[in-house]
Amino acid sequence: HTYSHATYRLYDDKADFAKKAQGIAVGLTVGSWTDLPEAAKEQMQKHLGQVVSVDVHEPADAQPGQRYADITIAYPDLNFSRDIPAFLVTVFGKLSMDGKIKLIDIAPSSDFLSAFTGPKFGVQGVRDLLGVHDRPLVMSIFKSVIGHDLANLREQFLQQALGGVDLIKDDEILFENPLTPLEKRVEACASAAREAEQATGQKLIYFTNLTGPTFELKTNAKRAIAAGANGLLFNVLAYGFDALAELAADPDINVPIAAHPAMAGAFYPSPHYGISAPVLLGKLMRIAGADLSLFPSPYGSVVMPKAENLAVMEDLLTPALPQKTSFPVPSAGIHPGLVPLIMGDFGPDVVVNAGGGVHGHPGGAAAGGRAFRQAVDAIKLGQTLEQYAEKHEELRVAIERWGVRTS
Amino acid sequence: HTYSHATYRLYDDKADFAKKAQGIAVGLTVGSWTDLPEAAKEQMQKHLGQVVSVDVHEPADAQPGQRYADITIAYPDLNFSRDIPAFLVTVFGKLSMDGKIKLIDIAPSSDFLSAFTGPKFGVQGVRDLLGVHDRPLVMSIFKSVIGHDLANLREQFLQQALGGVDLIKDDEILFENPLTPLEKRVEACASAAREAEQATGQKLIYFTNLTGPTFELKTNAKRAIAAGANGLLFNVLAYGFDALAELAADPDINVPIAAHPAMAGAFYPSPHYGISAPVLLGKLMRIAGADLSLFPSPYGSVVMPKAENLAVMEDLLTPALPQKTSFPVPSAGIHPGLVPLIMGDFGPDVVVNAGGGVHGHPGGAAAGGRAFRQAVDAIKLGQTLEQYAEKHEELRVAIERWGVRTS
Ligand SMILES: [Mg+2]
Ligand SMILES: [Mg+2]
Repeated sequence: HTYSHATYRLYDDKADFAKKAQGIAVGLTVGSWTDLPEAAKEQMQKHLGQVVSVDVHEPADAQPGQRYADITIAYPDLNFSRDIPAFLVTVFGKLSMDGKIKLIDIAPSSDFLSAFTGPKFGVQGVRDLLGVHDRPLVMSIFKSVIGHDLANLREQFLQQALGGVDLIKDDEILFENPLTPLEKRVEACASAAREAEQATGQKLIYFTNLTGPTFELKTNAKRAIAAGANGLLFNVLAYGFDALAELAADPDINVPIAAHPAMAGAFYPSPHYGISAPVLLGKLMRIAGADLSLFPSPYGSVVMPKAENLAVMEDLLTPALPQKTSFPVPSAGIHPGLVPLIMGDFGPDVVVNAGGGVHGHPGGAAAGGRAFRQAVDAIKLGQTLEQYAEKHEELRVAIERWGVRTS
Repeated sequence: HTYSHATYRLYDDKADFAKKAQGIAVGLTVGSWTDLPEAAKEQMQKHLGQVVSVDVHEPADAQPGQRYADITIAYPDLNFSRDIPAFLVTVFGKLSMDGKIKLIDIAPSSDFLSAFTGPKFGVQGVRDLLGVHDRPLVMSIFKSVIGHDLANLREQFLQQALGGVDLIKDDEILFENPLTPLEKRVEACASAAREAEQATGQKLIYFTNLTGPTFELKTNAKRAIAAGANGLLFNVLAYGFDALAELAADPDINVPIAAHPAMAGAFYPSPHYGISAPVLLGKLMRIAGADLSLFPSPYGSVVMPKAENLAVMEDLLTPALPQKTSFPVPSAGIHPGLVPLIMGDFGPDVVVNAGGGVHGHPGGAAAGGRAFRQAVDAIKLGQTLEQYAEKHEELRVAIERWGVRTS
């Protein structure tokens, strides 16, 4: 019999954490144990959760609110079906409401993991689609989408694309609407992509926002793809991880999926409650099949601490999971002057994702895209941005505008 | 043009909350405003969010961490489609990650609300199904389900049913499994229900746990119903509110749905982050179509403060929403001695829901159910539990076991 593990951090000034751990292991599996007759115990043993570890943190001079324990429980795989709702309801359903408790890590068994096809493309597959293997990718976001018509959206798309970005994504708040309905929007943007590809000689993926009623998501995805979308953006947390897992597993949805973290802030920032960012935006996104996972960068105004960012990245890229790797996409507040820092923190397998940092370039969005590409090239060539900017005008202007941060 | 409102609580020792509110109203709608040309402003005005109120709480002697503001923003309905994912991603997508911010209230427009059929039965409809109009309903939960076979589950069901409970629900952690697969489980429990109905002369609803892959939920619901299920339990938060909304809107899924709060603790308990319990387990569950909404009672070990409980109840029952009302089901730690308190706090339209309080009765589960029914009858007749227990043995034993709490 195999087990999947979950690790929790529990804050409590007085609790007997070992007893609490036993209560979880029994309560979330067979329900009761000590009062079972021996024959029943024998039959139930394989369904019983096990306490793996109880690690109490209690400084000698602990102030109220500082005492906590990290508790790891092994849950028999026998107890739940091979889908993420069943896993999450088992390990953090009722338990999520039981005091100051946060789900800080998961280690699903190989058997559980084997049920998930994961990212259809992953880092390598997305690179193959683009033919770009030797540098971070650059993604840009529309400046604004709500209230704009098709012609305007197409022009925004074209300008971004002409700068040489690799990926362009819809805004996550662009839903089905009369001005830019799904298929018309995809057609307009795909034609702009072809136009730009002729000019730049490079490929481009457009992530169309996949929205609408849950039970129409597959149909909408296929409509978008039929209209020419070669990527999908998806607000995973609004629909649940299983919807992503099923979209990713569908052979007809043969384009990469970028997972947007909308609503993630309802889960990860509290030290006492919720689900940690590495579990939520790292492991679960990857297992469920996100080819790219977006999360708040540590550099901008909407921030996640750098250690947490790197832990998310680690889970997206670790060879310890059987699923293909997912591109980390640290987002918000990104300008070209941050590229040395991003590449230093994340290495080459990262998507440099910008909105204001592209559109706010004094030379326009195309110049903004070029400045990002130049910044990436500079680091690849071992130059400083300042050196490279001497002969690259768009980068020079960007540095003038935003500066350079190297730490 | 119509607007839907969202209210947030933001903690910040120094922020200019009025400016922050403007930033939200613009940033989550048209993206930018002051730099727009006049012609564009005219066109964009109808898409622009509006600050409704900024209510700063700053005690004169405020300690660090105490200063906060409640901010209400009006979002144009034009900007999002008529589904809960679009609404939540708009009002609390990116914003959820932007500092210490909690979504504490929502007021979707009549136009938005009109897209939701809501509970198919609601309080009145569930009462009609049972023919019980003059008292709280009594629900019981299986003692334990994992590792048990069909015969055992049937026997557990029968014993609970014989005590005269109105509703019996699966455990939320019972997934598709070889011992008690969906249809066989439903058949076994439905036959036990018929047997009990013959004995007690009263009707019974069995809420079967609806699980599995998202895109098979409708099929599984219909399989359960075809096999004889006359209710469904659903882990709404693991699948998203839209899945519930679509299940509730499907005319073929013609049984009440009980929403389980599994994972809700990842959202509501932090003062600084997440989504408040009344929004999550009250308004959204009702709009999405839960006939019953379960939440942690203020009486047991897994607790939600009483004020929050009553706010959830208020949102489930208020005539201010066009959807039918939903039964509040305060759960966990309920025994017969709490019935006076529950009826005092919640009034008559409540489901008294117990697991241990039924199965832990010294006389067994049937006696446990009877004790609950007797406790309800006592209060209905204006007697104390102690008075009524003089002539009602099961209640007397329950009181001996658990005591009576009246405050
Ligand atoms: Mg955005
Ligand atoms: Mg349960």
